[in-house]
Amino acid sequence: MTVQRRIPGVLGGMGPEATVDFMAKVIALTPGDKDQDHIHMLVDHNPTVPNRQDAIIGDGEDPGPALAAMARRLEAAGADFLVIPCNTAYVFKQAVIDAVEIPLVSIIDVTIDAIPDECDAVGLLATEGCLQAGVYQRGLEAAQVGALQPTADEMRRLMPAVTAVKAGRADAATSDTLRALAEALVGRGAGAIIAGCTEIPLVLTASMLDVPLLSSTDILAHKTVQLALSE
Amino acid sequence: MTVQRRIPGVLGGMGPEATVDFMAKVIALTPGDKDQDHIHMLVDHNPTVPNRQDAIIGDGEDPGPALAAMARRLEAAGADFLVIPCNTAYVFKQAVIDAVEIPLVSIIDVTIDAIPDECDAVGLLATEGCLQAGVYQRGLEAAQVGALQPTADEMRRLMPAVTAVKAGRADAATSDTLRALAEALVGRGAGAIIAGCTEIPLVLTASMLDVPLLSSTDILAHKTVQLALSE
Repeated sequence: MTVQRRIPGVLGGMGPEATVDFMAKVIALTPGDKDQDHIHMLVDHNPTVPNRQDAIIGDGEDPGPALAAMARRLEAAGADFLVIPCNTAYVFKQAVIDAVEIPLVSIIDVTIDAIPDECDAVGLLATEGCLQAGVYQRGLEAAQVGALQPTADEMRRLMPAVTAVKAGRADAATSDTLRALAEALVGRGAGAIIAGCTEIPLVLTASMLDVPLLSSTDILAHKTVQLALSE
Repeated sequence: MTVQRRIPGVLGGMGPEATVDFMAKVIALTPGDKDQDHIHMLVDHNPTVPNRQDAIIGDGEDPGPALAAMARRLEAAGADFLVIPCNTAYVFKQAVIDAVEIPLVSIIDVTIDAIPDECDAVGLLATEGCLQAGVYQRGLEAAQVGALQPTADEMRRLMPAVTAVKAGRADAATSDTLRALAEALVGRGAGAIIAGCTEIPLVLTASMLDVPLLSSTDILAHKTVQLALSE
């Protein structure tokens, strides 16, 4: 029987399917056969948080206050640590950190930590806003791993694919687009691909690539289980 | 664009996959293309609630206090109404009702309300505890619809199938078992089958039967969307 030590608080809904995918992965990664073996999670599933892309790239409303309110609600409800299964929302981490006493796990850091030692350069599949904010690039530089990004032309194919998943169209055409974008990065020297947007693992899976796929959703789910159960 | 009027509070985790399935169905049933069109839900995903079967049938710990605490947390966090995507937990509804001011939607009532008018008798696929508590049978009697239940022998096949789903084994053999149990009820005169346990729709789907399948998960998800969006 598993013994839970800490309750994760999930700032969710960004996007909705990505949060459900994250929760399903936490469940699948938790050892046990009966309900009571599984992890108690508090989830603020809030898709109404202002658009992160618009806030980074344009003059859209700051999502910080909404994220801070979610963090406070989760802390008040009893969460021991926080996770955000959305890479672009993590750009606004300071609003969350300033709002609560409990720690926020970085989806960016845990994903970078999972890069295989022998990998000198990774391909970054992430949103326009996430790439522009440079959160992955800074972490990769510190880890001395090269960062290969999609070209401007490739980003014009990536963003509609992410939007399609958010619109419930996680179909074969969307999968094909993301696989082609990943393969282009591999062709330019990427030894692994970071799925640095939690919509991407809904259409791009490890078996579709010849190099390791580092799914930020899966890696954050793994870390969440580990933190919830470890002493 | 959808306009949300009320925030659902979900007493979840019973079982874990059933709650994720419920959330995925809420998302799929919500009109809209972008994150912000979707419904803000507060989810207390708590699989550690004491076993409901043991409390009804044996001398297991009362899950009422844990359910009441979840309800209070969700109300304090801002939920406008509560849902429990678990039929057997609904047997302990009074603990929830007594704990909060906000209403609790009955998974039992909404499922019974969805029975087609021309259907005189339904087959009940539900857990031992749920059937023993009689929650569906009382509602069906009030609605003047006959209730056909699995035999004792059939229940000895149904319960391990539910347990298998909770253990992450939602496989073809489990599907076959539930289909056979449903077909036996149809053979005895059921004009529709109630999947009155939220684990069941994870392995038994409408296309597998010749009569309508009333999935309590799907029907509760539909009601949740309706209540969240309606004036």
